[in-house]
Order: sequence, then structure tokens, then C-alpha cells
Amino acid sequence: MFYTIDILGTIAFAISGVLVAINKKMDLFGILIIGFVTAVGGGTLRDILIGQTPVSWMQDITYTYVILGSAIFAMLFRSYINYLRTSLFLFDTIGIGLYTVVGIEKGIHAGLHPVICIALGTITASFGGVIRDILSNEIPVIFRKEIYATACIVGGITYFLVRMFPLDDNFVFLLSAGIVILIRILAVKFKIGLPTIYKD
Amino acid sequence: MFYTIDILGTIAFAISGVLVAINKKMDLFGILIIGFVTAVGGGTLRDILIGQTPVSWMQDITYTYVILGSAIFAMLFRSYINYLRTSLFLFDTIGIGLYTVVGIEKGIHAGLHPVICIALGTITASFGGVIRDILSNEIPVIFRKEIYATACIVGGITYFLVRMFPLDDNFVFLLSAGIVILIRILAVKFKIGLPTIYKD
Amino acid sequence: MFYTIDILGTIAFAISGVLVAINKKMDLFGILIIGFVTAVGGGTLRDILIGQTPVSWMQDITYTYVILGSAIFAMLFRSYINYLRTSLFLFDTIGIGLYTVVGIEKGIHAGLHPVICIALGTITASFGGVIRDILSNEIPVIFRKEIYATACIVGGITYFLVRMFPLDDNFVFLLSAGIVILIRILAVKFKIGLPTIYKD
Repeated sequence: MFYTIDILGTIAFAISGVLVAINKKMDLFGILIIGFVTAVGGGTLRDILIGQTPVSWMQDITYTYVILGSAIFAMLFRSYINYLRTSLFLFDTIGIGLYTVVGIEKGIHAGLHPVICIALGTITASFGGVIRDILSNEIPVIFRKEIYATACIVGGITYFLVRMFPLDDNFVFLLSAGIVILIRILAVKFKIGLPTIYKD
Repeated sequence: MFYTIDILGTIAFAISGVLVAINKKMDLFGILIIGFVTAVGGGTLRDILIGQTPVSWMQDITYTYVILGSAIFAMLFRSYINYLRTSLFLFDTIGIGLYTVVGIEKGIHAGLHPVICIALGTITASFGGVIRDILSNEIPVIFRKEIYATACIVGGITYFLVRMFPLDDNFVFLLSAGIVILIRILAVKFKIGLPTIYKD
Repeated sequence: MFYTIDILGTIAFAISGVLVAINKKMDLFGILIIGFVTAVGGGTLRDILIGQTPVSWMQDITYTYVILGSAIFAMLFRSYINYLRTSLFLFDTIGIGLYTVVGIEKGIHAGLHPVICIALGTITASFGGVIRDILSNEIPVIFRKEIYATACIVGGITYFLVRMFPLDDNFVFLLSAGIVILIRILAVKFKIGLPTIYKD
């Protein structure tokens, strides 16, 4: 089941990259690449930082096929994708929740401090979008106005708090991912952003 | 012989970086760095992704000297470099062909899936130019209008198709690199680009 | 003592990142991240290039706490930070000197050529600022007008020259770091920059 959600998250991330690239008037190859790095960027940086190489997407060809398929789909049906916007947002948000906890658990496995594990989970969930924006020559959107990483961090703290109790591992996993998802949905629904401290 | 071509490719990549940096009014150090990352960026990312560290250019000082020499040459003779443009394009293109196949073979050696190997070859050949453009605050040129990665991908597919026959390894290597080079030359000669799908 | 200076350098780097992010109107999370990558970016790239993973900041939680503290401090007292500008510059410069030599010694430990070690030291000292500028969508400042990397390179050459004599390791370390610091201070004091070779 986790694998299915993981694939759904990958699809959503890939499509979000493809849409940005189309807006930037990139060619077919640029669109594919931006879709690809948006989907795998976070996990790739995570694997490089902890030294788990070859990085994950290189060891499971499924991701590549899923991303290629999503990119082709998004390019063909780009006019209709607005109708899918809610579904895409949901996939994307589920992907973020899942990626956060996957990253945390990889950090624990590598023997890292809980705070570092939470950072690693946040990187896994958010860095794909950061690379997407850098390659598109924009200041990364998550630095500007979205509660995104904050959701990951709160979910990560939840993970370590809940883990102190004798609970089932799957439950801890799902609860923490759920917190990330919930915060993200509420933030978007009620247009909550982190304050900027800049004043004119 | 491969080593010689490799060095010629390195020179061409370094000079292409230097010329971009000069246009961006960077200082001497900036010019050197952009020349350097353009030349070694692709191989460096490849080595990091598959976990072959310290990365290649750190283990063979020749590359560093060649790049420094090329950068100094390009700075001194920048007014005359237009006359060399055809030679440079040829070096660059040969470098791309070679780097693609080198990347593929490193992927095979790491036990990766053919599709991933082709991706790795393409990264090796094209990522130096991507970093050059990011550091110069531009949307990477290969995402916008050049048939570049496409040539690498077709060459990579050729490699795996031809390899199914009982042929000499060197022949497979040269044929695949040759396909990359041929596509790139034809694309530039006939001004072929990938379509963008953006419409106003 | 080295550890104390290292921490002071980390603080200065973090604060420099925070100030840039505030000017770019980023939100709280963006400010924290830019502060973080400015402080740890150079060491992270160094560790990845030589394959020493998990990267350093993941193995010593102190850096994370120091950076978080510095970021909060800089955000709270940003109006007064102008009064601290000289102290900050000094920390930053000491940090650069120290980071350069730390990077060189890691390169020696990994069995690399002296020239590569100097490159590694320069990367350690300067790459945090490069990432800071890329994430803020600017051409990295060190490519444009500051004698910064040059100071690292001269300090690195000093290190290998002095090391040929039978001197105490700590003395070699401090002398080389001192050269980096001295050049940087003189360059800023007398507004010395590297020439650009661009002409209209």
C-alpha cells in the first residue's frame, strides 16, 4: 500500500514539474527533465547526503517509467489539467506526508539525531520543488509563501513524540504522515502562510 | 586515443564556460570557476549519484591543468575565438558523444538498468552546461532550444541495441558516440529543435 | 580552540544568509533554510565530493542548534545588526580562513593531489555563499567582485609551501588560515577586486 501511495506522490510531483516547465516555454526535453527532478530530487539529495548510493531511483526502474508516463499525460492533456487540480493537490500532499516519514526513517536507520532526521525528512519532501524552481530561474516558492516545510517539521516532531509510546510502527508512520497532510490541507484551505519579516 | 578525445572535449567545455562567464562580466575567479564546472560538472554529478568518490577529476590532476590552461587561453584570445568557433563546436560535440558513452559504461559497471544507464550518460554529457547556466542565472539552454540531450538519448539506445550483437566493444563505443555526434551536427546544421508545446 | 572559532564562523555565515533572505522578502522558513545552507553548504559539498557521508553537520547536532540560534537572533535584532557589521565581517573572515585549511586537510587525508586539496579548501570556504546566492536567484557575489576565493587559494598554496619545513602542524594550520584572513581584510580595506575582462 505504501508503494502505491509513493507512486501516486511521484505522479503528482512529476506533473507539477511538467506544468511549471510548460509555462516557462521549455522544449519537450526540458519538460521531461523538470518533471523528473521535481519527482526524484528530494529523495536523491537525501540519499547523497547520507551516502546511500546509487541513489534510489537508479535502483528501481518503476519510478522512471511512472514519471515518463505522467509527463506525457500532462503534456497531452494540459488543457484539461485544471479540472484535475484538486486531485493533483491531494496526491502531492499525500506524497509530501509519505516522503517526510520515509526520509525520517532513513535517517534513523543511518543512526542520525532526531532533529537531523526531521531535517532529512523535510529535505526529502521539499527539495524536488526547490530544484524545479531553481532550474526555472525562480526563487523557490517554498521560501516565499507556502506552509510546506513547516508541515513536514511538525509531522516529524509528531513522529518522534509518538514513537516514545509502545505503538505499532505502521500506526506511527501513518499518524505522522497524516499530520503533515492535515496541516498542509488546512493551510491551503484557510490561506495561512508563514509571516515574512520584511517591512518597506 | 579515447583519453586524447576526452581531453579535447574537456577543453571545449571549459572554453564554452569561460565565454559565457566573460559575457556575464564576471571577474577572473568567476570565469575560472564557470569554465571548471562546465567541464567537470556532468562527470561529477554522475560520480556522486552512483557513489564513486572521490569524484573523477579529484583523482587525476590532468583535468585541472587542462582546464586552467584552456581558461587562460580563452581569456587571452577571446577576441579571436570567433574564428575558432567551428573547431570548438566540433570538440564540444565529440566531447558530448564520448561523455555519453563513458557515463553509460559506468552505469553498466554499477549494475544499473539500461534506461538508467542512458540517463546517466545524458547527465554526464549535459549537466556541465546546466550548472554553467544556473550559476550564470539563466534558464539552462538545453531546456529551451537545443537538440542536445536528445542526441545523447538516441546514442544511448543505439549502444544497447548494438551491444546485443557479438561486436567488438570499441566498435560499439565508437558507433554510439558517433550517432550522438552525427545527430548533434545535423540538428545544428539544419536548425532542428525540439518543439515547445507552449501556445499564447 | 579550533572548535570555538569554527562555531563563530558558522554563526557569521548563518547570519549573512539570514540577512540576504530577509532582503529577498522570504518567509520564516526560507530565512532559516538560507541561513542553514550558507553555514553548512561548503562543508556539505566537500564531504559529498570526497564521499565522506553522512555529511558532517548530520553527525554533530551542535551546528544545527548554533545555526537555529543565530537565525533567530538575526531575525529579532535585524535593525541593530548594522552596528555588528564589523564583528560579523571578522567572524566571517576567520571562518573562511579556518574552513579553507580544514578542507585542505580533509583532502590530504583522502589522499588527493595538493592542487585538488586547495580546490577542496576553497570549495569548503566559499560554496555556502554560492548556494545562498543561487537560492536567492542572484549571480553568486564571489564570481563578480570580491577577492574571496583568491584569498583561499593563496592561503592554500602557503599551507603546502610551509608544510615542506619541519614545523609544528598547529603552526602551519594557523599561519595558512592567517594568510587567508589577512588577504581578505586588506582586500576589503583597500577595496581591491579582481579585474573583469569584459569591455563594452
